[in-house]
Amino acid sequence: MRTITIKPTAITHNLNQVKKRAPHSKVLAMVKSNAYGHGVAAVLPALTQADGIGVATLIEALEARQLGWNKTIGLVEGAFTADEWQQAIDHEVSCVIHHVPQLEWALDNVPPAASATRVVWLKYNTGMNRLGFNAEGVIAAAKHLHAAGYQLILTTHFANADDITHPLNAVQIQRFKDMLATLKETVSNDVKGSLCNSAGVVNFSEHHYDWVRPGIILYGSAPVIDKSAQELDLQPAMSFSAQIIALQTVSANDAIGYSSRWIAQKDTETALVSIGYGDGYPRVVSEDAYVSVIDNTNNRSYPCAVLGRVAMDMIVIDVSAVPDNTSLLDSKVILWGDAPHVDEVAAHAHTISYELLCRLSMRPKRVQA
Amino acid sequence: MRTITIKPTAITHNLNQVKKRAPHSKVLAMVKSNAYGHGVAAVLPALTQADGIGVATLIEALEARQLGWNKTIGLVEGAFTADEWQQAIDHEVSCVIHHVPQLEWALDNVPPAASATRVVWLKYNTGMNRLGFNAEGVIAAAKHLHAAGYQLILTTHFANADDITHPLNAVQIQRFKDMLATLKETVSNDVKGSLCNSAGVVNFSEHHYDWVRPGIILYGSAPVIDKSAQELDLQPAMSFSAQIIALQTVSANDAIGYSSRWIAQKDTETALVSIGYGDGYPRVVSEDAYVSVIDNTNNRSYPCAVLGRVAMDMIVIDVSAVPDNTSLLDSKVILWGDAPHVDEVAAHAHTISYELLCRLSMRPKRVQA
Repeated sequence: MRTITIKPTAITHNLNQVKKRAPHSKVLAMVKSNAYGHGVAAVLPALTQADGIGVATLIEALEARQLGWNKTIGLVEGAFTADEWQQAIDHEVSCVIHHVPQLEWALDNVPPAASATRVVWLKYNTGMNRLGFNAEGVIAAAKHLHAAGYQLILTTHFANADDITHPLNAVQIQRFKDMLATLKETVSNDVKGSLCNSAGVVNFSEHHYDWVRPGIILYGSAPVIDKSAQELDLQPAMSFSAQIIALQTVSANDAIGYSSRWIAQKDTETALVSIGYGDGYPRVVSEDAYVSVIDNTNNRSYPCAVLGRVAMDMIVIDVSAVPDNTSLLDSKVILWGDAPHVDEVAAHAHTISYELLCRLSMRPKRVQA
Repeated sequence: MRTITIKPTAITHNLNQVKKRAPHSKVLAMVKSNAYGHGVAAVLPALTQADGIGVATLIEALEARQLGWNKTIGLVEGAFTADEWQQAIDHEVSCVIHHVPQLEWALDNVPPAASATRVVWLKYNTGMNRLGFNAEGVIAAAKHLHAAGYQLILTTHFANADDITHPLNAVQIQRFKDMLATLKETVSNDVKGSLCNSAGVVNFSEHHYDWVRPGIILYGSAPVIDKSAQELDLQPAMSFSAQIIALQTVSANDAIGYSSRWIAQKDTETALVSIGYGDGYPRVVSEDAYVSVIDNTNNRSYPCAVLGRVAMDMIVIDVSAVPDNTSLLDSKVILWGDAPHVDEVAAHAHTISYELLCRLSMRPKRVQA
């Protein structure tokens, strides 16, 4: 059975790792894109010790409220329309304000004094060049918002925090630090700051400020390029598995699968696994991609290479190295989990784990461990 | 609003194109993996003129029955367990039999004479080397199944039908033709044949046999490498869209997005679009990837390049070439649909449209046109 197993205890463990690294900061736990594909309903109960959650769309914010989340919700791209701004007020959502139209909606329609929407995350573009005001714009916006009664959190986003050696990091940190000092001096000493995503939490511990915004680290993947999830003491929150549905000996020189990409060098014991890109396993993986076969009889785990092109509904793997490979029918196969870690599979697919986790389809059954 | 719009009329049109190409064959319309990501509930009503549907899992078969599909359902990898075989009988599902355990379940547990499960699709491995019996095995299985009262459809699957020049095609066709003749002669003259997927329907019109099994062609993508969807008179069944949520001028020499991959050669008018890999747009696309911006004021469509790395929730595009690019806030953006066609986006992402369609997430809203 194609199965996605979520481990809430792993998420709580990973949250605690963040809190250890950033003990003086509040935590906005990112649960956008259905909690990075893990399912927001499964994840929220594991995040009760977070100070807030971050979402990308108003629909995601409303879903979290419906699920009973009654603490801070940060809408990280803010409202898309004036109507969404009103809905944010209605549901006590704290919004990012990153461009002039959002500023106008906020100034035209100020929520009640006690509303969580009175807290706004004012976005400063320090070098990502995706969203946010420039220096002049952020100062002007801060003054207007403060005058209208808003509490401000200055925020920005790293472009290269995963790579501690990238020169833009120091530039972004300095710009942020200078602007926060300016706002505290010229607008209000109460302006707060939020700089770090997962990678920033790990790589820039001197710059955690009032709120950190961890995302991928909560789900157990490494957010930096020079340390593994294991080195960071993270636990993978998802195990993605399927089963062996047939066994076959492929003769030397025969090709397997679409485009006849993989050609057997010798007679090879293969197994067919009920998983494919129609479930969310990536279609194009390198030759070193592997899965783990769990032998039913002794519960041992064996790494087995993926052979040829991944199809919509199945893959073929090499089970030659499994001792009792004639009795593997119906055995469980781990696509990612403890081993291989999703970060490894992402490397085999020339992408990052975030994408694999988000692009799972509706077909696999979802359960909790 | 992130939106997936399905056009059932396009699917019916594409089905009719198949029927024109294969006028003497029955059509098993493939709806596995949630109808290639289109949503099986939206797609089934457009397929009433098909003779049957094909699914990859028993759960998909049961879902189609629940939706009221009362014609043939072909389970293309067959039952995974003896229990699934019983459930297939219970729900009148016709199964592929591709290996010995499935043969044993069928011989041990023969459905009533009038059951649709009495029709089995006997899989012959002609060169895909993924599933199916070898020549000796298929003859033995056919004899046993025929003796037990089953009606047989001999079936196989092409490995390279998309490339009409590939030498394996002729080998597979000849092996299939010979085996069908053998079974008609030695087992029963009533044995039927099914060889062609979408690519086979287009490329091998002399070999359509009793059942064709179109998949991707129904959804409007080209199944062959040398002809476009337009050249084949296919209509895309899905339009995937989002909206512009901010506008920004990026200065010359500034970099955009993660890893600072895209660097502006000159001051550039950009727009932020509310879509990302968290919705199913591929994270890695080539520099010629583009989207279409629909100008609200005149309904005209403008191709706009995707700049830098696709993020989880947003992309940045170049709107310099749109005449009134200061008034584009909230404009609709087509990720794929009429233009760019999903086949183009797949080429930009170094994959095939099938994968993009299947790996859409649950986040976009789904509607029908």
